[in-house]
Amino acid sequence: MDDLTLSDYVQRSKQRVLSTLVDWLRIPSMSADPERAGDVARSAEFCAGLLRDAGLEAVEVLWAGGAGAPGNGSPAVYGEWLNAGRDAPSILVYGHHDVQPVDPLDEWSSPPFEPVVRHTEILARGASDDKGQVLMQIEAIRGLLAEHGGLPVNIKFLIEGEEEVGSPHLEDLVERERQKLAADLIVVSDSTMVASDIPSTTLSMRGLVSFDVHIRTARSDLHSGIWGGTVPNAALVAAQLAASLHDAAGRVTLPGFYDRVRELTNEEAASLASVPFDEKAYCKQAGVQYLEGETGRTPYERTGTRPTAEVVGLHSGYGGPGMKTIVPATANLKVALRLVPDQVPEAIAASFREWLAERAPKHIEISATSSEGVAPLVTLPNQPAVRTLCDAIEQVWGSSLFLPGAGGAGRRKVSAGC
Amino acid sequence: MDDLTLSDYVQRSKQRVLSTLVDWLRIPSMSADPERAGDVARSAEFCAGLLRDAGLEAVEVLWAGGAGAPGNGSPAVYGEWLNAGRDAPSILVYGHHDVQPVDPLDEWSSPPFEPVVRHTEILARGASDDKGQVLMQIEAIRGLLAEHGGLPVNIKFLIEGEEEVGSPHLEDLVERERQKLAADLIVVSDSTMVASDIPSTTLSMRGLVSFDVHIRTARSDLHSGIWGGTVPNAALVAAQLAASLHDAAGRVTLPGFYDRVRELTNEEAASLASVPFDEKAYCKQAGVQYLEGETGRTPYERTGTRPTAEVVGLHSGYGGPGMKTIVPATANLKVALRLVPDQVPEAIAASFREWLAERAPKHIEISATSSEGVAPLVTLPNQPAVRTLCDAIEQVWGSSLFLPGAGGAGRRKVSAGC
Repeated sequence: MDDLTLSDYVQRSKQRVLSTLVDWLRIPSMSADPERAGDVARSAEFCAGLLRDAGLEAVEVLWAGGAGAPGNGSPAVYGEWLNAGRDAPSILVYGHHDVQPVDPLDEWSSPPFEPVVRHTEILARGASDDKGQVLMQIEAIRGLLAEHGGLPVNIKFLIEGEEEVGSPHLEDLVERERQKLAADLIVVSDSTMVASDIPSTTLSMRGLVSFDVHIRTARSDLHSGIWGGTVPNAALVAAQLAASLHDAAGRVTLPGFYDRVRELTNEEAASLASVPFDEKAYCKQAGVQYLEGETGRTPYERTGTRPTAEVVGLHSGYGGPGMKTIVPATANLKVALRLVPDQVPEAIAASFREWLAERAPKHIEISATSSEGVAPLVTLPNQPAVRTLCDAIEQVWGSSLFLPGAGGAGRRKVSAGC
Repeated sequence: MDDLTLSDYVQRSKQRVLSTLVDWLRIPSMSADPERAGDVARSAEFCAGLLRDAGLEAVEVLWAGGAGAPGNGSPAVYGEWLNAGRDAPSILVYGHHDVQPVDPLDEWSSPPFEPVVRHTEILARGASDDKGQVLMQIEAIRGLLAEHGGLPVNIKFLIEGEEEVGSPHLEDLVERERQKLAADLIVVSDSTMVASDIPSTTLSMRGLVSFDVHIRTARSDLHSGIWGGTVPNAALVAAQLAASLHDAAGRVTLPGFYDRVRELTNEEAASLASVPFDEKAYCKQAGVQYLEGETGRTPYERTGTRPTAEVVGLHSGYGGPGMKTIVPATANLKVALRLVPDQVPEAIAASFREWLAERAPKHIEISATSSEGVAPLVTLPNQPAVRTLCDAIEQVWGSSLFLPGAGGAGRRKVSAGC
C-alpha cells in the first residue's frame, strides 16, 4: 500500500472510525470503581468486536481468574494475526480500555461520557487515555489487511482493563498466557509526543508504586474548644507527613530513594536539551501558573528522567459547608511515587515504610497498603525496530524523530483534551 | 424551698424531664446544614414550649431578620420572668439548641438522633452540648416557680440556634434586642466541670476565629506520570501550610499571635496547678494515646489559658477506593484558632491573612474566608455572683468550688458521652 492508497483509505474511513470511537467512549469503563465492573466488561466486549471486525483472529476476553471466569480484576482483550509465518517477527501492541475516575464532575466542561468534538479534539474520558490510540492501531491493521490482504509481520493485541488501577493482575495474566503473548517487540500506545508539531516517541516509561496511608489519632473527632492544645490532630499528622516528602531542594526524602537512579550520559543529556521547550506554552497546556520541582534539573529531566513523589489525595476532618470546631481523629493520605531506571518498586516500597515509621508519631494507629509496583522500562535507541520507526516517521513528517534519552522520558501528554 | 423539698421535686420530676429531653434530642437541629433549617426551627418551637410550660413569660422565637421573619440565620428563643421587681438583679441564662453535624456516621456506636440511655449517660447528639444543660436550667426555674411561687431575682433565657456555626447573627440580635436582653449577669451553660467529682465552674471562655481556605494550583487535576515533577500540587501546598501552623515548640507561627496573650499571675498559676490531673484518665476520656502541645505548659494551661490553632479539615485530590495517578489541582484547608484574653479576633484574622500571603506560593489562586470572630471572655473571681455560686455549690457538694484562673480555663468536657 503506497502513501496515496493509505491516505485514500483514511479519508474513506474517517467518519466510521470517529463514530466507532464515540460509541466506545460512551462506556464508563472506570476500573477504580467496583460498581463499574459491568461497564468495564462491556468495554472489553466492544474492543473484542473491533478486533474481530479488523480481521484479527483468536479474539478473546482474558480474565485474571482464567478465561471465561470473572472474579478478580477487570477483563483484558486479546487478538492476533499470525499469518506472516514463523520466521517473521512478532509485534505485541499493548493498550488499555479502562479509564480514570471522573470526580470532581463539576470540573468538566462537558459530561465525561458524552463525547463532544471541539475544533480538532474529542473531549471525553478515555479519548486520549487510551481508547483513541488503541482504536487508531486496530484501524491501521484493519486498513493494511483490507487493502493488502496481509502484513509482513505477525501482530498480537493485548488491551488491558485495569491499567488505571496499577495493573494488579497483569503479571499473573502474562505468566499464564506466556506462550500466546510471546513477541519480539512491544508497542505501547499509552503515551504521546513531546508536542503536536514535534515528531517523537517514548523509549522509556517511569514506573509506579503507590501507598494508601490511614491514620487515627483518637477514638473519634474531639471538640477543639475543649481538647485543642493537648491532643494529637490527625489532619496535622497527615499534613506533616505530606509536607516532609520533599526537602528544600525538591528531592524526595525517602532513605536511599536516589541510590539506583541512573544519571543521564552526556549524550542523553544533550539529546534531551536539544528538544525545544516553551515554558509559557507548557504552563498553558498544564493549566498552571508556574513550574517547580527538583533543583538543578530541567522540566524534561524532571518528568522524564527523575523519580518523583506526588500527594494524590489527602482527606481529614470536616469538608462540608460551614465550619465544625473539631480536632479530626482520622486522616487518609495517598502517595504515588514515579520511578525511573534502575529503581526497584519493592525496594522503594520498603523505603517508604521505613520513612513512615521514622516520621509518624510513635503512638498513633497508622496503616499503609501499597499497590503492586510497576517497574520503569527502557528500550535502547539502537534497536532495529526503533530505526524502522524513525524511518517511517521521517517519511511521513519530513523531519527526524526525537528520541528521548534512554534514561526514561516518561509519559508526556500533548493534547489539551483528555 | 429547702433541700428536702428540692430533692423531692427532682425525684418526682425525673422521668418527665428525661422523657422531655429524649424528645428534644430526636430533633436533628444541625445548624451547619442548610437542609436542616426546618429541624432547627422545630427545635426552637420545642424550646419555646418548654419555657412556657416552666412559667416563663413573653416567650418568643427571635429571628436574626426581625421577629417572625425567617431568612438569615437560625432562630433563637427568648423567655423571661421579671416579677422580682426593678431593684432585684437580672440574670440572663444563655444556651443553644442547635447541634454539631454528625458525620462520619459510622463512628457512632448508636444513631445520633435516637437517644440511648447507657449506664448514667444519655448518648445522642446534643445531649451534653447543649440541650441537656438548657433543659436542666429551665427545669430548675420551673421547680422554683412551682414550689415557691416566685424567685428572688429576675430571669431571662436566650437559647441560640446557631452556636455551632460561630453565632454569625448573634451580635445583630443582641444589638436589636438590647433592652430586652439587658442583665446584670450572664450564666452560660455550654461548658462543663473539670471532672465529675471535682466541683468547678468556668470563669472564662476561649474565643474563636476560623478560616476556610481554598487553593487552586491548576485548571484541573493532572496526570502524575506526565506532569509529576514540574507542576505545583494543591494537596502539597495545603499540607505545607497546615504543617507550618506550629513551630517545633508547638507555638502558633502567625505573626504577633501571642502579643496580647495575658500571662497567668502566680496566684492563677498556683490555682490551676492545684487541680488534680490524671494523664491516663484524661487520655482515656479523649480516646487518645498521648498528649502534645505547646512546650513548657501544663495540659490545663494549654486548653484553658493558651491560644491554639487546629486544622479542622484538609481535603484535596482523590479520596475514594483504589488509587488515581493524579496531581490534585484544588485543596480546601479549614483552620480554627482558639483565642484567650486579651487577643482580638479581628487582629488575629488580619494576622492569619498576612501569614497566608507570606507562606503560600506566589502564583496560585488562594482565597480565605473567615468566620466572624468570637472574643475570649473573663469573669473576675471576686464578683458577688461568683461568691454566691461558690456558697451554693459548697452547700450541695460539701467541698469548695474550683475556680479556674481568670486567664481563661476555656471549655472542658467531662462526660465520655456527647
